[in-house]
Amino acid sequence: MDFAPSPRAAELTALVKDFIETEIEPVEAAYHHEIKRRRDAGQGEQWQELPVMADLRAKARERGLWNLFLPAGHEGPYAEKYGTLGGAGLSNVEYAPIAELTGRSFVAPYVLNCNAPDTGNMEVLLKYGSQAQKDQWLDPLLDGRIRSAFLMTEPGVASSDATNMELSAIVDGDEIVLNGRKWFSTGVGHPDCEIFIVMGLTDPEADRHHRHSMVLVPRDTPGVKVERMLTTMGYFDEPHGHGEVSLTDVRVPIQNFVSGPGEAFAIAQGRLGPGRVHHCMRLIGLAEKALELACQRGTDRVAFGKPLVNLGGNRERIAQARIAIESTRLLVLNAAWKLDVGGPMNAISEVSQIKVAAPAMALDVIDFAMQIHGGGGLTDDFPLAAAWTTARSLRYADGPDEVHLGLIARLELMKYGVSR
Amino acid sequence: MDFAPSPRAAELTALVKDFIETEIEPVEAAYHHEIKRRRDAGQGEQWQELPVMADLRAKARERGLWNLFLPAGHEGPYAEKYGTLGGAGLSNVEYAPIAELTGRSFVAPYVLNCNAPDTGNMEVLLKYGSQAQKDQWLDPLLDGRIRSAFLMTEPGVASSDATNMELSAIVDGDEIVLNGRKWFSTGVGHPDCEIFIVMGLTDPEADRHHRHSMVLVPRDTPGVKVERMLTTMGYFDEPHGHGEVSLTDVRVPIQNFVSGPGEAFAIAQGRLGPGRVHHCMRLIGLAEKALELACQRGTDRVAFGKPLVNLGGNRERIAQARIAIESTRLLVLNAAWKLDVGGPMNAISEVSQIKVAAPAMALDVIDFAMQIHGGGGLTDDFPLAAAWTTARSLRYADGPDEVHLGLIARLELMKYGVSR
Amino acid sequence: MDFAPSPRAAELTALVKDFIETEIEPVEAAYHHEIKRRRDAGQGEQWQELPVMADLRAKARERGLWNLFLPAGHEGPYAEKYGTLGGAGLSNVEYAPIAELTGRSFVAPYVLNCNAPDTGNMEVLLKYGSQAQKDQWLDPLLDGRIRSAFLMTEPGVASSDATNMELSAIVDGDEIVLNGRKWFSTGVGHPDCEIFIVMGLTDPEADRHHRHSMVLVPRDTPGVKVERMLTTMGYFDEPHGHGEVSLTDVRVPIQNFVSGPGEAFAIAQGRLGPGRVHHCMRLIGLAEKALELACQRGTDRVAFGKPLVNLGGNRERIAQARIAIESTRLLVLNAAWKLDVGGPMNAISEVSQIKVAAPAMALDVIDFAMQIHGGGGLTDDFPLAAAWTTARSLRYADGPDEVHLGLIARLELMKYGVSR
Amino acid sequence: MDFAPSPRAAELTALVKDFIETEIEPVEAAYHHEIKRRRDAGQGEQWQELPVMADLRAKARERGLWNLFLPAGHEGPYAEKYGTLGGAGLSNVEYAPIAELTGRSFVAPYVLNCNAPDTGNMEVLLKYGSQAQKDQWLDPLLDGRIRSAFLMTEPGVASSDATNMELSAIVDGDEIVLNGRKWFSTGVGHPDCEIFIVMGLTDPEADRHHRHSMVLVPRDTPGVKVERMLTTMGYFDEPHGHGEVSLTDVRVPIQNFVSGPGEAFAIAQGRLGPGRVHHCMRLIGLAEKALELACQRGTDRVAFGKPLVNLGGNRERIAQARIAIESTRLLVLNAAWKLDVGGPMNAISEVSQIKVAAPAMALDVIDFAMQIHGGGGLTDDFPLAAAWTTARSLRYADGPDEVHLGLIARLELMKYGVSR
Repeated sequence: MDFAPSPRAAELTALVKDFIETEIEPVEAAYHHEIKRRRDAGQGEQWQELPVMADLRAKARERGLWNLFLPAGHEGPYAEKYGTLGGAGLSNVEYAPIAELTGRSFVAPYVLNCNAPDTGNMEVLLKYGSQAQKDQWLDPLLDGRIRSAFLMTEPGVASSDATNMELSAIVDGDEIVLNGRKWFSTGVGHPDCEIFIVMGLTDPEADRHHRHSMVLVPRDTPGVKVERMLTTMGYFDEPHGHGEVSLTDVRVPIQNFVSGPGEAFAIAQGRLGPGRVHHCMRLIGLAEKALELACQRGTDRVAFGKPLVNLGGNRERIAQARIAIESTRLLVLNAAWKLDVGGPMNAISEVSQIKVAAPAMALDVIDFAMQIHGGGGLTDDFPLAAAWTTARSLRYADGPDEVHLGLIARLELMKYGVSR
Repeated sequence: MDFAPSPRAAELTALVKDFIETEIEPVEAAYHHEIKRRRDAGQGEQWQELPVMADLRAKARERGLWNLFLPAGHEGPYAEKYGTLGGAGLSNVEYAPIAELTGRSFVAPYVLNCNAPDTGNMEVLLKYGSQAQKDQWLDPLLDGRIRSAFLMTEPGVASSDATNMELSAIVDGDEIVLNGRKWFSTGVGHPDCEIFIVMGLTDPEADRHHRHSMVLVPRDTPGVKVERMLTTMGYFDEPHGHGEVSLTDVRVPIQNFVSGPGEAFAIAQGRLGPGRVHHCMRLIGLAEKALELACQRGTDRVAFGKPLVNLGGNRERIAQARIAIESTRLLVLNAAWKLDVGGPMNAISEVSQIKVAAPAMALDVIDFAMQIHGGGGLTDDFPLAAAWTTARSLRYADGPDEVHLGLIARLELMKYGVSR
Repeated sequence: MDFAPSPRAAELTALVKDFIETEIEPVEAAYHHEIKRRRDAGQGEQWQELPVMADLRAKARERGLWNLFLPAGHEGPYAEKYGTLGGAGLSNVEYAPIAELTGRSFVAPYVLNCNAPDTGNMEVLLKYGSQAQKDQWLDPLLDGRIRSAFLMTEPGVASSDATNMELSAIVDGDEIVLNGRKWFSTGVGHPDCEIFIVMGLTDPEADRHHRHSMVLVPRDTPGVKVERMLTTMGYFDEPHGHGEVSLTDVRVPIQNFVSGPGEAFAIAQGRLGPGRVHHCMRLIGLAEKALELACQRGTDRVAFGKPLVNLGGNRERIAQARIAIESTRLLVLNAAWKLDVGGPMNAISEVSQIKVAAPAMALDVIDFAMQIHGGGGLTDDFPLAAAWTTARSLRYADGPDEVHLGLIARLELMKYGVSR
Repeated sequence: MDFAPSPRAAELTALVKDFIETEIEPVEAAYHHEIKRRRDAGQGEQWQELPVMADLRAKARERGLWNLFLPAGHEGPYAEKYGTLGGAGLSNVEYAPIAELTGRSFVAPYVLNCNAPDTGNMEVLLKYGSQAQKDQWLDPLLDGRIRSAFLMTEPGVASSDATNMELSAIVDGDEIVLNGRKWFSTGVGHPDCEIFIVMGLTDPEADRHHRHSMVLVPRDTPGVKVERMLTTMGYFDEPHGHGEVSLTDVRVPIQNFVSGPGEAFAIAQGRLGPGRVHHCMRLIGLAEKALELACQRGTDRVAFGKPLVNLGGNRERIAQARIAIESTRLLVLNAAWKLDVGGPMNAISEVSQIKVAAPAMALDVIDFAMQIHGGGGLTDDFPLAAAWTTARSLRYADGPDEVHLGLIARLELMKYGVSR
């Protein structure tokens, strides 16, 4: 168990920290303000990317702070092809402090081309894509020219059980025909989102875990329609957003299966491991940010003759937040380390553990921070309401708490001879 | 301790239940949908009242389901003057089940002219207003022709300590001059909101609890400006909304003091007791509604071969929600009964107890309901995200949890000779 | 919902309060000290009743503070027969404040002949016993000459599912033959404990809820053996105690079935309703006592220059304890009232609700009180460690939390058409 | 952050694991049974050491599993002097898995001569003792010939604030005179306990943190009296126990100051760091043991047709226990690593973090394990009741939660310029 970063990783971490502090933080409030202004103006302009983003992304790329999520082992070919686009060959443990830093900001992951769901989608293409698929979609994603979405959850069924998915992806000659409806398709609001990875039901007669396929569907394919953008707790998360998408007689070539028909579950397992770890890493950063804001507000504001931190149980809450952040960060590092040394199958319980623990921890810390901010904590004058919403979403996204708890318990009970 | 309603109250409760089920519920989803459509259209139309509201309000009034919050003892003169406008002379215990029912809907309190902050403002005018003030403002409020706001919380200070308030309300000859800034001024978004009750600092040299005054300020007075409408967790709560308001050299006649200069604390105590009880009653209804939605969703949806309610700890969560709702409802009834038999000074601890307990209970139940709805629970397809936001706001509104806990502890420790 | 006591009940409550304060409290510490001395002396003398108990019981009886638990409706015949022995005809709501007061003391329930399991056993005999059974066992129990035990839980099976019980109670001619083992048989340590009500399996072929019977087994019947006395958290709870009892070829006349063979479940339901309510009432008193001790210690002791109550989150803990006690007391009163107005079948969910809520609440309050007492809180210098143990036991006794939660959820879900 | 053990440490861990499984576990139940029998016999024999302990200790020592707690850097001279008695030169991180294993058993720490308070006392003598003090007391402690106690907490004051301590340790010529009373003096029940380290007030006029001294007081010094042995939750923890000790005009030579007069606080800080880490390491093992017992019982026992683990929320509780154990173990390793790399002053917050987190975590897991054991969980048929008591004690011992939370918050707020 060695969680220490290499010198190269430490250096990158310092660069990312500096970049966020000097480039992103100074402009972030104005960015969100403008997005909000556009939303309230109601002309749909909030779904356009602001120019400042392109600038920031160009700078990040220039400095080699790009695609750092790209897992070790893959940077070789991509480094050759793209130079710094190819990531830095970081292990998950090495990437953790970087991802944590990006989690302090709502835009940093995107600026560094390290945002979900693109990261997961790039990993899918890396690991399971054909060369043609890589050439067509992975290259521009790594290059940041396009964006992508992952269409899995469906409004009509309990999607916590992925075998429930009903959208059909039927082979018809040399084409795949897709029909159905998805929602919580993150990223479809962005104008550059050009490719969807869609999970569909191909063979209902196959065994439970070989019925579904992953299919590459270009956004402009006839029959694809973004029906609406969804709010979470009143937020649209522009310009990426979360969409509800209908697919009606959508036809794509049979070559668009990723890996092959019936391979969705195998791919999903591989995709979600690191993706969940990234989410959790970012939540650590989000919680740290919230605790900072709480401490600042709590020392600046005075009530009943004392700074807020000296009233009631506030100091105990600060201490409990510190304990919770530290222990959860270590748990996340541990999961990352298990992934690094043994791959996804070596870290099933660990990844589920952090997927339960990190959002719960972050929600507690953020909620305390909101409370110490008084009514302001619920407004957009502070990033806390949006932070809470992000953390709350992650109690569902990539599997709800209950499914992960069930999995952890199953693995625990296998030690006692319980088969399921 | 008798929490049983009179026959008259039971009859009114049944009428309200029927009215909500037959008149309000069938149209409420469409109403919210239209408000949302207008908001997203960005033309500011969401701040206009939809015609359906006027219809519903007319019907409610016609059926005598109007101003039912009006406390017993006051209905006499108003009944004489207004007929059914004068409330029904219900005690707090009798009003509780009615308020609970209205809490199940976001519009029912307004439809029945029983919504905050108008209820509290009407009570202030009833108890502390001069006859001229009543004639000018209370009558149209009871009649539903105008709306009102209560301007207390300030952005610049920790408003949990009301003695911190800095907006000045200085006597200058026969006028009061107000300067300062308020926020979380609920209701100022509504086009009919014509009168503000503003808490201001009149005499900084007086003792701590006699420095501040309540002043009636018509909205159209020069120098009054609604600077912006605030979101809570991304919601504007149109068309009432929560505003930030600046007052710059605002001048009103000296007759506009409520009760007199320096009387703000005395009034606030009287105002907030029943107001807090009403909030808590409505939270019981909101939690019941959330539990219903959770049970319905949990029985309708199937994962891993079972209805969701039969998975993991869901049944235990339902049972704990039932326990929490029942015990909190009883606590609220108890506070109402203490108010009824002995007035606000008889129920200080009890009111603070429910002000802490009810939002916490509701948040737990609603959070569970969101979780069992999957991602949908965070969207506006269900009323849960907005319900959570309402309950969360009530951990600040009318005093944050921490202030109420401090008060309860102080009263408890007085039994042991601790003076403060 | 009327929780107000009658004048007669209020008068009895005042008398009990006075009796506990003037007669029991002054001698209780010395009593426990002597029991502890005897236990440590190891001669088994702790299982003898100390003379002070007989004195206190005589006084209580003399003052009419005897068998007050006896439910309304039964006092008539017993009042005739026994005078004041026959209880006072109190409803459950009326008995609640009396039971609460007795819960503040570990000996008061026994002194007033209102202690478990004798109360439940007397109720069983009252409701289900034949006249001969009443004459032989109920009369001396009401008179306080003998004690009783209830033998249900078994060491070999999960007794949370009462249908698991394996001790056999087979009809053989005109006798019942019992074989098996029970534990947590409360009261068998007392030298006056003469009669056991034993739950046994009579007909394994009958339907699930008609297989078991209740059988009256005199303690001195051949084949009955108290194998050992059990500790709970290191306590024996002398002189009543909790025993493990073996029954080997124990033979009693067939007339010793209570109500009849196969009637155990019907009886258990009737027995446990009021019994559980009594337990919960007493827990309210226990929690009040703990909070008193916490407040006293917290104001008397000084650390870091302040009384302990003014450090960290202690005042918030006191306030939360007050809220929890109040809301749980109301929940208990509500269950009592439901029992009063509609009998056990009217209060199934309510009784389960308090059975979950009251021990959990009491444990929290007591744990806080222990903590504020420092290390001393774990010793026997204060009644807190024993209080915690009592409350913890009640998360199992008469059904573990989990069974009650399951029942509450089942009743809740029946509203949505879920049959089980 | 490298938590990986060296090969030598891994080998020792395996040896300890084997030793506990093959030597200790097979005899432990009988050992506790006999201690219990002796206690109930009341002849005081439970305070004698059973022969099996001497055997086990001899075997452990023979295998080099002795004094493994001895911190790296000190083993040199002691290895020279004592061979394997001198510990193995393990870092705190390396010792952690060993301490965890010993925490699974109530006797293993003693068998390996690694039990509190002897470990802490040996460290004090190592770091602060004069050569004469080492020769006289450290040598036989390392050799296991004698035992020791640490007398700090006092019954008369809030000992959470160590500056409150009132026992006087006054210099009189070339002697120190001690007068006062201590309690929770762990270990004084053991017949081999020969030396006490006593904290006393030497100079009330000195500054707050230089008033108190540590004094070596041989147990047989005139004026020393063990007044009584204390129970915690009904347990005496024989044969070590927790005593209340009076010191009346106790005189020892002035050479018996450890380090010097007024040095108590400096010593306590140094003593308590690693001691607290050891406690927390053992709590991890205790929690693992409890979870094992819970899983076993939960799979073995059946209710309502299913193994207990498949009922209600039990699987979720198992999963949450797994998460809590893993994250707390990592937190403990982190504190150990911070101690290793930078000494006690480098790990102040970290040590306080685990001192709060580990007992709380262990209590939750043990409480769940008790619950799934039904009534039996509270008896001594399982080690759970005693385990709970141990963990509960550690919410006070070496500083109550509240003091540690205060310290963590203070360090956190120093980042924001708050001085205290």
